[in-house]
Amino acid sequence: MADNKQFVKEIADMSADFPQWYTDVVLKTELADYGPVKGTMVIRPYGYEIWENIQHSLDRRFKETGHKNAYFPLLIPYSYLLKEAEHVEGFAPEVALVTHVGDTELEEKLVVRPTSETIICEMYSRWVHSYRDLPVLINQWANVVRWEKTTRPFLRTSEFLWQEGHTLHITSEEAKEETLKMLEVYREFMQNVLAIEVLVGRKSEKEKFAGAQETYAMEAMMLDGKSLQAGTSHFFGRNFSDAFDIKFLDKDGTLKNPYHTSWGVSTRLIGALIMAHGDQRGLKLPPRVAPVQCVIIPIATHKAGVLDKAYEIAEVLKNAGVRDEVDAREQSPGWKFNEWEMKGAPIRLEIGPRDIENGQCVLARRDTQEKSTALLADISSTVLSLLDEIHNNMYEQSKAFVNNHIKICSNMDELTTAINEQNFVKTMWCGCPECEAAVKAATSASSRVMPFDQTPVGDTCVYCGKKADKVIYFARAY
Amino acid sequence: MADNKQFVKEIADMSADFPQWYTDVVLKTELADYGPVKGTMVIRPYGYEIWENIQHSLDRRFKETGHKNAYFPLLIPYSYLLKEAEHVEGFAPEVALVTHVGDTELEEKLVVRPTSETIICEMYSRWVHSYRDLPVLINQWANVVRWEKTTRPFLRTSEFLWQEGHTLHITSEEAKEETLKMLEVYREFMQNVLAIEVLVGRKSEKEKFAGAQETYAMEAMMLDGKSLQAGTSHFFGRNFSDAFDIKFLDKDGTLKNPYHTSWGVSTRLIGALIMAHGDQRGLKLPPRVAPVQCVIIPIATHKAGVLDKAYEIAEVLKNAGVRDEVDAREQSPGWKFNEWEMKGAPIRLEIGPRDIENGQCVLARRDTQEKSTALLADISSTVLSLLDEIHNNMYEQSKAFVNNHIKICSNMDELTTAINEQNFVKTMWCGCPECEAAVKAATSASSRVMPFDQTPVGDTCVYCGKKADKVIYFARAY
Repeated sequence: MADNKQFVKEIADMSADFPQWYTDVVLKTELADYGPVKGTMVIRPYGYEIWENIQHSLDRRFKETGHKNAYFPLLIPYSYLLKEAEHVEGFAPEVALVTHVGDTELEEKLVVRPTSETIICEMYSRWVHSYRDLPVLINQWANVVRWEKTTRPFLRTSEFLWQEGHTLHITSEEAKEETLKMLEVYREFMQNVLAIEVLVGRKSEKEKFAGAQETYAMEAMMLDGKSLQAGTSHFFGRNFSDAFDIKFLDKDGTLKNPYHTSWGVSTRLIGALIMAHGDQRGLKLPPRVAPVQCVIIPIATHKAGVLDKAYEIAEVLKNAGVRDEVDAREQSPGWKFNEWEMKGAPIRLEIGPRDIENGQCVLARRDTQEKSTALLADISSTVLSLLDEIHNNMYEQSKAFVNNHIKICSNMDELTTAINEQNFVKTMWCGCPECEAAVKAATSASSRVMPFDQTPVGDTCVYCGKKADKVIYFARAY
Repeated sequence: MADNKQFVKEIADMSADFPQWYTDVVLKTELADYGPVKGTMVIRPYGYEIWENIQHSLDRRFKETGHKNAYFPLLIPYSYLLKEAEHVEGFAPEVALVTHVGDTELEEKLVVRPTSETIICEMYSRWVHSYRDLPVLINQWANVVRWEKTTRPFLRTSEFLWQEGHTLHITSEEAKEETLKMLEVYREFMQNVLAIEVLVGRKSEKEKFAGAQETYAMEAMMLDGKSLQAGTSHFFGRNFSDAFDIKFLDKDGTLKNPYHTSWGVSTRLIGALIMAHGDQRGLKLPPRVAPVQCVIIPIATHKAGVLDKAYEIAEVLKNAGVRDEVDAREQSPGWKFNEWEMKGAPIRLEIGPRDIENGQCVLARRDTQEKSTALLADISSTVLSLLDEIHNNMYEQSKAFVNNHIKICSNMDELTTAINEQNFVKTMWCGCPECEAAVKAATSASSRVMPFDQTPVGDTCVYCGKKADKVIYFARAY
């Protein structure tokens, strides 16, 4: 257990210093490292493999809902940014600008994409001519750059990886349906892949995307009670299609601007899963994105047959679709147990000479720390069903945590206490931006979403006390 | 056939104007479009799906050879570029520079990565400390920016997508082995996935990568007899590991610099497959990367049951792993035949009322234009084996074309004639850069590779006539 203490010591106490715990976990499990340019990060193989698994799961869902991928240029003429008024206001201060190539100054400076509405709408204006060309259902996986003052790996970095869907539709109704459909794709993914319960709903005017008419979001609750906006889906109306002159000839013979949506999630999701599931020992990875779902640790490797058996089990599990790995390094089993707990592998399989004699092995769950004995004869089905069980348990824990940390408040005293005690607040709001801003000024909690279920939890605004009909969540946020 | 002529007319005659044919094919099959910034391209869904299939095939091969993916920042401090003398000379004139964020000038200008040797080696210097940390076997899928004066979609664009493997090894031998192993991975991929015969070998000093000690490449022959460098694999020795101070403590207790390799292919491969396989009708896609391997065209869709049957066949094929699509648009079958020929779908499946009665359908091959009748009862196995047959035929055609267009030449007259007649020239070279440059000045053919099989085809240099021991290929190149 000396080893254990040593490892736990490397990671700050999460209850005493949650931000330091987060940084320690990110760096020490080798998910990411700091890049040389301030605010940038390097996604190391262990972190990138999580991203690949996230990409796979989402990409399949996007294709099943009829979307295709494409790729649009990184560099955007500065003039494009100016075409939509709210958009330029939102992004101009934080865009990286390319002004020179080698020693030569460019005639027009170029924006390194912070998001691609402008360039994608420019291209759509060239491609869309008739109602037959609609809907356009395109997604892009790409890197984007937004200069941020305060940065943290995965949560807020100058460059991050993401996907951005951009769709065009003949009618407003169809576009709104798309906006909500993709929000639901995200929510279902959070539940069934990342095992995270999220709150979904509509953003306030203040919190919506620069240029959108309506922004919908999913908010995930981190273990410190703060909210992480984990994905957004925007209804743009015709803001960009008008600004970029996208026109189609409708069946009735008139030229119209189509309706536009966009929706995106990013490498921020990795930050979400760290802070929604982790514990004092480090990462606790949801099985469906864990790079190593089952780590196999041979005990007494000097004994004949142990390593061979470990590799044999690895092969059997791999053939059943399990992502596994034999840790055959020279360190002690105890050292490896701690390392893989820190790295969050959902299952640890221990196999030693005695186990081999008995035709069994030991399985240790990362989520509950429980150990059990399993027969080697049906190890694949045991591991596969245990992975599902772990997933389900992690999701149930996430859901219980969220439910336990939502407090219904009807006045500012209650709200302030609930926020200070690391909760989300569900309350009534009159809808005026001044009250929303006042809550933030008093508590640093911002409005998160107005849930689709608007069953009132009171009848007066939590701030001004006037009649209110909007149910809304407030929380401190990343 | 009126339709047919109309379609063919849209594409320039490849024998009269090959470059125009290429541009027409790229734009009219909607593989790509021009981006708004000069020299950039948009990869449209049909082109991007080819890239996704290429990525899948290669990524699997990289992982099977022990590599993992990671992601390094786009923006690199300018000072990094200066650390390796040849490297900065090669890249400085064409790098895009970020100098400002919003209105604020940056203290140090940043390079938009043209390639990632410098930033990756900087990170490796932080991660590698001991022989236990080696080898490092990392690959990155990313976008890169290199400002080019003359650009063409896929072949040479200011921004392109690629992968770059960067590995570190304890010994020079192991690094050289990696360099050649990955070259062979590429060659095998070209043969078994893109159905393209390539010539592999070592680059001359003049043609090697800026900063490499040895560059190996595969050269693909386009239908106009020009060469396209389709992938490279570099042995860097310790150039970068020394410049970036990567040091490991070896078993013997001394600090050493590891040996470094890198290897890459890019979206240029899409250019390669267009120009290696296309014909007067347009694209001819190799089945293993074709977005639509089998297009299903219902005949007489107004007749009851035809569309249903088409979708039923589509489902059966999809379940067997075939990428298929029912083209149920309102246009005539003839129009669709032409469109899908232009778009290069390997197999067209025609199904009409009479076919349904007889329990059969018509299969038309894109590669040979042959039509045959197939039973619906075993359509999956028929289509799957036909796809393999098409692949094999396309590769054999590519191989025969290459073999027919390699001319062995022993003097400049022969070489000039062979180059002008759109061939590759295999010849002897004394090894001096002046002769290599003189051949290029006289014919605009550059040295491509020195093949691994160095069986002499003469004993004097094709240019200077002095004693020569190097077998080398010359060709005009993209």
